[in-house]
Parts: sequence; structure tokens; C-alpha cells
Amino acid sequence: MAIAAVSTSATQSMTGADRLCDALLAHDVDVCFANPGTSEMHFVAALDRQPRMRCILGLFEGVVTGAADGYARMRDKPAATLLHLGPGLANGLANMHNARRAHSPMINIVGDHAVEHLPLDSPLTSDIDSLARPMSRWVRRIGDPSRIDHDVAEAWAQSMAPGISTLILPADMAWNEHVYGSDLAHGKRLPQTPLEQETVARIGAAIRAKRKVVLLLTGAALRERPLWIADSIRRATGVEIYAQGTNGRIERGRGRAPIAKLPMTHDGGGALLRDTDMLVLIGAKEPVAFFAYPNRPGRLAPPSCEIVRLAGPDQDLVQALEWLADEAGAQVERISDVPAATAVPTSGGALSVDAVNRLVAARLPEQAIICDEALTSSGFFELSYDAPAHDYLQITGGAIGIGIPMAAGAAVACPGRKVINLQADGSGMYTVQGLWTHARENLDVLTIVFSNRSYATLWGEMSKVGAQTPGRNAQRMLQLDQPELGWTKLAAGLGVEASRVTTVSEFSRALDAALARRGPYLIEAMV
Amino acid sequence: MAIAAVSTSATQSMTGADRLCDALLAHDVDVCFANPGTSEMHFVAALDRQPRMRCILGLFEGVVTGAADGYARMRDKPAATLLHLGPGLANGLANMHNARRAHSPMINIVGDHAVEHLPLDSPLTSDIDSLARPMSRWVRRIGDPSRIDHDVAEAWAQSMAPGISTLILPADMAWNEHVYGSDLAHGKRLPQTPLEQETVARIGAAIRAKRKVVLLLTGAALRERPLWIADSIRRATGVEIYAQGTNGRIERGRGRAPIAKLPMTHDGGGALLRDTDMLVLIGAKEPVAFFAYPNRPGRLAPPSCEIVRLAGPDQDLVQALEWLADEAGAQVERISDVPAATAVPTSGGALSVDAVNRLVAARLPEQAIICDEALTSSGFFELSYDAPAHDYLQITGGAIGIGIPMAAGAAVACPGRKVINLQADGSGMYTVQGLWTHARENLDVLTIVFSNRSYATLWGEMSKVGAQTPGRNAQRMLQLDQPELGWTKLAAGLGVEASRVTTVSEFSRALDAALARRGPYLIEAMV
Repeated sequence: MAIAAVSTSATQSMTGADRLCDALLAHDVDVCFANPGTSEMHFVAALDRQPRMRCILGLFEGVVTGAADGYARMRDKPAATLLHLGPGLANGLANMHNARRAHSPMINIVGDHAVEHLPLDSPLTSDIDSLARPMSRWVRRIGDPSRIDHDVAEAWAQSMAPGISTLILPADMAWNEHVYGSDLAHGKRLPQTPLEQETVARIGAAIRAKRKVVLLLTGAALRERPLWIADSIRRATGVEIYAQGTNGRIERGRGRAPIAKLPMTHDGGGALLRDTDMLVLIGAKEPVAFFAYPNRPGRLAPPSCEIVRLAGPDQDLVQALEWLADEAGAQVERISDVPAATAVPTSGGALSVDAVNRLVAARLPEQAIICDEALTSSGFFELSYDAPAHDYLQITGGAIGIGIPMAAGAAVACPGRKVINLQADGSGMYTVQGLWTHARENLDVLTIVFSNRSYATLWGEMSKVGAQTPGRNAQRMLQLDQPELGWTKLAAGLGVEASRVTTVSEFSRALDAALARRGPYLIEAMV
Repeated sequence: MAIAAVSTSATQSMTGADRLCDALLAHDVDVCFANPGTSEMHFVAALDRQPRMRCILGLFEGVVTGAADGYARMRDKPAATLLHLGPGLANGLANMHNARRAHSPMINIVGDHAVEHLPLDSPLTSDIDSLARPMSRWVRRIGDPSRIDHDVAEAWAQSMAPGISTLILPADMAWNEHVYGSDLAHGKRLPQTPLEQETVARIGAAIRAKRKVVLLLTGAALRERPLWIADSIRRATGVEIYAQGTNGRIERGRGRAPIAKLPMTHDGGGALLRDTDMLVLIGAKEPVAFFAYPNRPGRLAPPSCEIVRLAGPDQDLVQALEWLADEAGAQVERISDVPAATAVPTSGGALSVDAVNRLVAARLPEQAIICDEALTSSGFFELSYDAPAHDYLQITGGAIGIGIPMAAGAAVACPGRKVINLQADGSGMYTVQGLWTHARENLDVLTIVFSNRSYATLWGEMSKVGAQTPGRNAQRMLQLDQPELGWTKLAAGLGVEASRVTTVSEFSRALDAALARRGPYLIEAMV
């Protein structure tokens, strides 16, 4: 990695923790989602000396890493996280998994015991390096205080590649003082692999030969401009375009080219791809089924389909689309040819998932940010192409419990914008503590809980495995009633105002009221 | 490992999941703490066909593994856990870390994608094996359906060694049918390393030479009989005895020999050991400081102290004490020579941590089980030697968030006994979802939350690192007010009745009422 030097104040003695903090700020990493412990207190003290760093507490580490993911998706740069030893890291891994699948940049600072203390195997000792690796792109244990700024520079560069960088900070590396020079290392972005013009030509030839070509997009290809490029290619040539099944962020709504997501099922995505001759991956992976089922193929494209990787997530996806538009002779125009959405009911009886999603889509504030962990209560995305312009963030890695934290991170990233989290109830429970962070930071987040009192996904799966009449054990593992979760009480206990609604009219009124105010609110929608 | 054959019904065709379930039951593993997902549905269906298996849902995996730990501590045998892929395992790791430090047996069943699906890297794919290893004694990926009962037999034997066994179950290993023979493999306990008589003689010689000898006990040495043996050695010879700083379970109260825990600090345990000539480890590890501090030694015993390992956690600790008693010529007698506890105030003004602990110790029901995650609100243990006979379980690995789950597991293990969880508020938030399991299973658990609205441990640590006046960032990371956590509302939202008390009188009345009822209850003690 190329590293440039940034001139700071004169040579001075400071702790490694202070140097680490300076180095993060030098890379414009100025938000730290934190759940610190004893071994990180010198770093906490260093953060305390740097008011430019905004420190945001999560009451559980899954909140911390999920918030860092939401922040990164909206800002295209990493936040820092501060995690306490192996168990603290472990608690944050599930949402790191989602961040990894969203290609989000993130820089984890994980405290560890002092170097001499580590072999004593005191109770909180664990193998942090091994725990970090599966979810990290890059892991380093800080071992030379004089190189801390270089470690941060590389952590930053690796995170922008993009991916998750984990820096393990032994306590003595934080507390020891050193005399540092006036230069501070600054990371440079890793060089991108160049695109291959011959791949573009190959795709162009297939299009001209009237073969059935499908473009599969994710990552930066799902922002406003590249989406219009892709849509223009579609209109000019007849190729089909889809977003990957799960994506970190889609710029969506009126003024943006509509795009469907390719369902990650054999009956869904597999059927759509049935006669495809060439599948072009633009940041995306080859589409596969989310889960395996007996006697069902895992790959969704037919065996005869040629799969062409035009660009990977570490390449320039916008340029890839521009080259392809040129090759295909497509003029880039912003022409939406989809019909307007159907009318929305605003009153009536029992509340349904569909009514919630339609009302939210219709009433969406301009430039809202949607976080979608609705799972079996989903349906918003299909309606949202015709909603006001917004950003759409979804669970990417299937590790449930991202919604509430991701909403927190998105709200920190974009203070002027309303964040709406569409939240399944079972999933919301994994990181319910994040509501407290909504309240503590007075974040402008509306959480809408689809309360169906079950792991509804799993009831569907139970029938697929041929269980006719689920017995006591299955019911005890899949039902969330007995007792019912009381989301308004949970929210109140965490400092967030809330209301429970059971009819369309009630939801409509509650939604209007929630959108008219700023700050955190929760609607428990009984569906 | 030696494996015996258990005869079952005749040869039959069944799924791997059914075989796995049968094999667990054959080892008397009949409780499964679960948080299943799609890839485990065939195993869920198999559990559903076996009413003998008690399946208990946790709404977060830290609840699942913490409950399995609490269960194992009280029953000296493993429960099974059911976890969903890498993220589900990751969420359970922190409390596995505590279980590992408590030497608790546990058998994790972690679902994974079908073998052919795994290389497709669908979104929920991660490196489960690597995630499992740091906290497991033994990890195996099931790869041969015909050997599932052997895999379970070995998992069981390894868990009884003791430790954590993790079995990774690919979905197709669960769903495929096989014809199984009528014999079911049964694990045999691993052979224990024999004790060394010459070590016993060496310790005896030191005692006779009037050297200062300290016995440090943990694990099975902290049950009623071995504690009396150790105490008898103490009375006969003048050796000092301590329990390790953290222990899985101590049999405690009237009728049991009182024992102090050796504090894991330089000023605490280090001072107590200052002139020790020989430190004898009986199941225990060499005592070290919980955390490192600049210019403080990590080892608590002085460098001149001879450290003798009489028995490790995998050896027969009771026999070790018996041999040592013989060697020292100590007659085993049950003579308590400590004074009775002081009187307990039952009325008065503002509630203090001390008042809560004194009242709980005084009112403790016979054969209660105490779970202690009070941290800075601790003090119960020191008072409890004179309380009615009870079991004392504490956080062992420093991974906060064990209290509520461990109480659930202990209550499942011992249905006739009152469980009282002494819970710090910040730590309780990590696995607050466990209260729902208390309600769902109608467990006889009283949770007493010490509400001090801060990470009080860390405020103490901040002053140690020399931060005079904490600024905004430190306050934002260490204070839990703004907003205050509302524990009665949280409990209500999770189906548990609760009350908030602010005075000694109120607490006294609430405690009496809570002890007079059965089933879950929570007292929020404002201290």
C-alpha cells in the first residue's frame, strides 16, 4: 500500500492510544460506535481528549457493528467500532457478517490484554485473531507503537477496498508513551483491477446476436446514475436487468430507474433466469439459492448459461456500465416506462402487512432512508419504485438483528433525513438494545415493527420439510406468543415513545403523527 | 474413546436428524436450548417427533448458550444447544466463553448449509469451524450419516471431560435417510489422568516444615464434601484455603464449610498471597490479575512462591483432597468456626447495594440457587456463608450477559428450587431477551437488578488511567442515563412482572412478596 505523510504538529510524546485516535481522524474516521471495557480505558481516555471524534454507545456489540454498517452504507466510508476483547468482538460478529456481505467499509478496534499479560490466560483471554478472521477482510495485531499510524493507514485502505478491517489493540500498546514524529501516515486507496475491454466486446456480441442477456447488479451499480445507464442499455437492447438478491444500498423511488431484485429461490430467481444465455455480473456474485433444499439445484442460472464477470465489487462498476452502454450503442436517458403505483387504502379494518407497506411507500418523506428487515412482512420494495426518492438498505447476510442498529448508523450518517426501519418482530429482538441508542442520540428513526408473534419464516420452512401438524416442540421453538412481546413497553423501557396499532386507520394516523415529528418513535403494527 | 453399543429397536430407515436426536437422548441429553433457523428445520422436525426432548427457545443465542451453561453447572451434564449457522454460533460465543471458564459440559448443534451448497457461498455462509474453535474443546463437522451416533458419543465424552463440544450439522446430513442398525453408539467418559502420590507427599512435607501453604480450589472441589475436607486440612495444619477468583459453582451457606474467593487483583489476591511459600492448585489455575495495569505484575503469587499443581480440572479433585487430608493427618469434621453474620436492617431510607445483599442473604430460601452478575454491586458472596444452604453460580469468564440466561438454565435444571439472579444493569442488557424465556417456561427466577445507571466498573477504571475529569466522550460511553433504562417496562414487554423500589423498606416488602410466589419476577432496585 502506498502511504503518504500528513504533517501534524511538532514531534511530541503521547500514548499509543492518542496516536491511534489521531490517525483515525487523519483518515476522516470521526465516528466511533463503542462498547468499551476495562482493557480499552486508555483508548477511551484518548477519545475523550478528542472532541472531534463522535463516540456513540451501544448497549450490546451487535448494535455497535450494525450501526457502523448502516453508517458506512450511507457515507461510503468507515466508522470505527470499539469492542472489548474476544467476547465483545464475538457479540459483534453477526452484524459484521451482514456488513461483509454489503461490502461495507468498517474499522474495528478490539482491545486485548497487555502483551505480557496474554500468556497468563486470565479469565477474559481468548483467541481474538481467530475470532476476527472469518468476518474480516484484514486483521492486524498492533505490535509496534511507532507504527500505529501505519497500521491505521493500512486498515483504512483495506476497508475502502471495500471490507472490514480489524485492528487488535493490546492494552500496553495503548497506554505506553512514545515520541512521535510530526508526520502521520495516510493510507492511499488500493489500486483497482482494470476492466477488460474484451469482456465488454464479448457481451456486446451476445447482445447483437440476440441472445438472452441478463445484467445482475449490486454495490455502486445501484446508485442513481449507473442505474439509469443500466436501464438505458435495457431499453436500447432488450437485455434484462436485476439487482442482486441482497444489496447494501439501492437509490430508489421517483427519479431513479426502477429495478427488481432477483429472488434467491429456485422458483423465483431460477424461473426468471430459465432461458438466459448469458448472465453478466456487475459487482454481483453468481446467483444461488439462499438455502439448499433436497433435490433442488443451488445455482439459479441454467447449466447452459454463460456467466460473465464484467466487474467485481473491487472494480469500477460505473465505468463498466458506461463501457457497456457505449458497446451497445445505448444513449443514456432518464425515461421511466413503468406504470404508477396503485391507490393506497388509508382506512379500514384489520391491519395487513400489505397495508403497512403501501402506506409507508405512499407517505415516504423525500430523501428518506429505508432499512428493511421485514423478512416475511416484506413487500415494501416492490411498491417503492414509485415512492419519493429514497435510499433502500436491507439485511444482506441473513444474520438477523441488523434493522435497529443499521437505522441508528444511517441516522448518524445523514442527520437531516428521516430513517424508517421496517422490522420483523423476531429479528428485532436480537438487537433490541439499539432502541436505547436511538433515544440517547435523539436519532430521527421511525421503527415499524411487524408484530406477527412468530418466526414466520420458519413456519413456512416447516411445511416444506413435510411436517404436517407441528407438535409441542416445534411450536415451542417457532411461536413467539406465550407471552406476547410487548414492543411499546420494550421501547418505553429503552426511552423510545411508541404506540400499538391494530387497524389500517390507526396505523395511518400513527404513521402521519410519527412522520410529522423528529426523533425516535416506534409503531407496533399488529399484523 | 471407548464406545459401547446400546441396543435400540430393530434396523430402520430414518433421517440423520432423527438419528442425531436419538443419540443425544441415549446419552441422557434431554434438554435442548434452541434458536433454530431454516437450515436446521429437519432437526427441528426430528426434535418435534421426540417429546422426551425438552426444547426451550431463546430469542437470542446468548440466551441459549448461557442457559446451557447454567443447566450444566447444576446438573453436571450437558444440555444441547441448537444454533443457526455461523452468525447464530457467533451470537452464542460470549456465553460459551463463560461456560468454558466454568468447565461446563455443553453440546452445540450448529446447522450449516448442505455439503454441495457450501461452495456456492450463499449469503449466510461463513467459516463455522473457525468461529467454533476458540471457545470449544472439540469441534467436528458431521460428514458421514452412518457415523452420527459415534459423533454424538464422542461429543458427549469430550463435553464430560469437561468442555464444550461443537457438532456442525450440514442440512443434507440432517435430511438424508439411511438404514441404521439396531445398536446406538454410547460414549464412555475419557480416562482421568491419575493423581501423583509424590506430589501429595511434597505438599505434606511443606506443611510439616511449617512453610506457608495455600490451597486454591475450584470446580468439583467446591462442593459440600470436598469443602469440608479442605477446611479440615486447614484446621488441622494451618494451611490457608481459597476458592479461585471465579468458579462455576460453590455449595455455600449454613452446613457448608465457608471459603473466601481469592480476589483477582494485585492489591487483593496479591496481598493475601504475599508470604506464601507454596501454592497448591486443586482444579485451579495459577492466580493472575483479571486485567493488566502499567507496572503491576500479572501473577499474584510472589516470584519465590512454589506453585504445585495437585490436580487439574480433568482429574479427581475430591480424591486429591482426600489424599492430602490423609497425608496431613487431618480428620474430616464439619466444624464451622466463623462467627454468625451481623443483623440485617429491614427498614430505612435510600436503598444501598449493601442493604440489598444483606436482605437477600438473610431471607434466602433453603436450597436457593444464586446467580451472581452483580459486578460492582457485589457483596452478597461475603455475607452468604451464614445464609441457608444454597448454590452460588457466578460469571466466570468476564463476558457480561450471563446472569439472566444462567438463571434460566439453573431453573430448568432444578425445578423445585428458587433461583435468584443478582444482576448489574449494564450487563443485564446484553441478554435481556432471556427474561422472555423465564416467562415462556414459567421459571421460578427472581431477577434483582442493581440499577446504578452506569458502567460503574469502568468509571473506577477511568480514574485508574489518570483521567481527572471525564469529558463528553467518556461520559457518553460510560453513563447509562439519558435515557434511564426502565427495567420494569422491559420486563413487562417480555412477559415478566416487575416492581421498582427505591428504599430499604420497599425492597424488603418486594423481596418478601417475590419469595412468597413461584414463577418469574423482577425487582428493579434503584441503588
